[in-house]
Amino acid sequence: MMMTRAWTLKSRPTGLPDHDNFELCEIADAPIGAGEVRVRNLWMSVDPYMRGRMNDAKSYAAPFELGEPMHGGAIGEVIESQADGLAVGDLVQHMFGWRDSAQGPAAQFTKLPALGVAPQVFLGMLGMPGMTAWFGLLDVGQAKAGDTVFVSAAAGAVGSTVTQIAKAKGMTVIGSAGGADKCAWVKSLGADAVIDYKTEGSLVKKLSEAAPKGIDVYFDNVGGDHLDAALAVANDGAHFAMCGMIHGYNDATPVQLRYIMRIVAARLRIRGFIVTDFFDRMGEFYQDMGGLLAAGKLESRETVHEGLEAAPDAFLGLFSGENTGKMLVRI
Amino acid sequence: MMMTRAWTLKSRPTGLPDHDNFELCEIADAPIGAGEVRVRNLWMSVDPYMRGRMNDAKSYAAPFELGEPMHGGAIGEVIESQADGLAVGDLVQHMFGWRDSAQGPAAQFTKLPALGVAPQVFLGMLGMPGMTAWFGLLDVGQAKAGDTVFVSAAAGAVGSTVTQIAKAKGMTVIGSAGGADKCAWVKSLGADAVIDYKTEGSLVKKLSEAAPKGIDVYFDNVGGDHLDAALAVANDGAHFAMCGMIHGYNDATPVQLRYIMRIVAARLRIRGFIVTDFFDRMGEFYQDMGGLLAAGKLESRETVHEGLEAAPDAFLGLFSGENTGKMLVRI
Repeated sequence: MMMTRAWTLKSRPTGLPDHDNFELCEIADAPIGAGEVRVRNLWMSVDPYMRGRMNDAKSYAAPFELGEPMHGGAIGEVIESQADGLAVGDLVQHMFGWRDSAQGPAAQFTKLPALGVAPQVFLGMLGMPGMTAWFGLLDVGQAKAGDTVFVSAAAGAVGSTVTQIAKAKGMTVIGSAGGADKCAWVKSLGADAVIDYKTEGSLVKKLSEAAPKGIDVYFDNVGGDHLDAALAVANDGAHFAMCGMIHGYNDATPVQLRYIMRIVAARLRIRGFIVTDFFDRMGEFYQDMGGLLAAGKLESRETVHEGLEAAPDAFLGLFSGENTGKMLVRI
Repeated sequence: MMMTRAWTLKSRPTGLPDHDNFELCEIADAPIGAGEVRVRNLWMSVDPYMRGRMNDAKSYAAPFELGEPMHGGAIGEVIESQADGLAVGDLVQHMFGWRDSAQGPAAQFTKLPALGVAPQVFLGMLGMPGMTAWFGLLDVGQAKAGDTVFVSAAAGAVGSTVTQIAKAKGMTVIGSAGGADKCAWVKSLGADAVIDYKTEGSLVKKLSEAAPKGIDVYFDNVGGDHLDAALAVANDGAHFAMCGMIHGYNDATPVQLRYIMRIVAARLRIRGFIVTDFFDRMGEFYQDMGGLLAAGKLESRETVHEGLEAAPDAFLGLFSGENTGKMLVRI
């Protein structure tokens, strides 16, 4: 009998997770039935939102079950098929990450569109992070040519895509990132200014200097002091696209905001969103992003950990700012 | 020569203002010119937003000038006219409060519509507080029949109007107020539940109990712990109409929010607004509110200080929660 290795959640973390929260188990493969496929995973994604699923609390994604394999975005190759439309050798994307192989009804596996890019790009710029960037910036944030956009965690998978889409569409972009290397990369993507949040000094002051005319759009991946700085310098009627707040995922300390009253004075519009709300508009996304990619306007970068056994390292690295671009595990 | 008494801003307050920040001066009346009127003030309004104008900081309303008469909503009677369309004896509303009389071009004085209500109602339910309530609840907050609405400072001029409009339009309303008397009054206005924020216990817990199915709309007059509680119990896609944050007007301590990450998870829509942005839609407001008033669905209450000399007392009373309903000065 064939066995599959899968990472399970052994215990629920409080604060920052560590390796003891995870356990690699072996599960016997069942035979596949009619209409089902078996997929050998090639790449898996780790994403900050997974931290929320490790808590036993209702949120937009259901909590991971203790002792059960975790889920997440993955790319694999069909190695066995009893389903029309999916053949052995097809590359597919699906949500059964954190494991060597997966099986299930064909409807849960989507064949990768032929866009001439490496398959793992469908976990990054052409996957959830890319969609998050595109819908968040253009729909939730209502950003348009001529706007000044501030994006936090601009060296991350989402932030680096936001930066590049915004530049491709004629916006002024200010990004924040931690450390000289990341800042240099964000600058090389076209950002007009980059703030190193790890250096001394007030983020409000740094952002005021980088955006002397204020900001029209804030794309928030961080929360905390980044959000407060954006509140401080937001122009009248600015839009805040609230994508995530990695600042608080492992820390229950209340967030302190000095500038929250500017919501009223500057008539700000602050809106949280989840990318799955936009899945019915995926066609728009592929059309526009496919065009930008074909035109060479987007650069995709990955930080790769090798082997399924390294998945917890990759996940934990998200919270120490280890990744530039999309954090991936090659299985 | 006739003299007019006017309150001037003697010094800019830090934190809570006190009487030393204000000075009552006498100003010689100039003769009125062609197209101008002179008005004897009968009522003046004091409003929390005036605190912001006492700072020397850019906001949506320009700062008051030191040593100059302050401004604010007022109702008066025309006592001298060289303008077409305004005759001696007409009742008008205007922005030259904080003084016994005012003069200027007729365009700065608006004749009260004949809606059969006492003139001071045009400083409350049919004035800026009423417009703030109506546009904030129905436009910014997108509230509709069947929604559960939480309104903070529900015994205030704006909050008590929000409560009554929401009930008249088929919503469930939870109000907060400080002290048993105010809470009883808010309940008498039709609120389904009232939270006394001055009693012991967590506001999050109180609101969760008062709104077991969550809230769809939050109308914020307070900020701080009220905002945090609303974040905690907001339903998916809830709208927050951010009207004011009296909690922080005299206090520069950062606001602490434990539940701010729910903006993302619950896809909240948080929007600040200033009532003046809606002045071009005043006709809609008068039509709808006039109908509700005529149908006896709205109760207006005032807390009145007597005499221009009491104006600072009235203003300071806003921050100690002294008023039930609209705070006014009868001149």
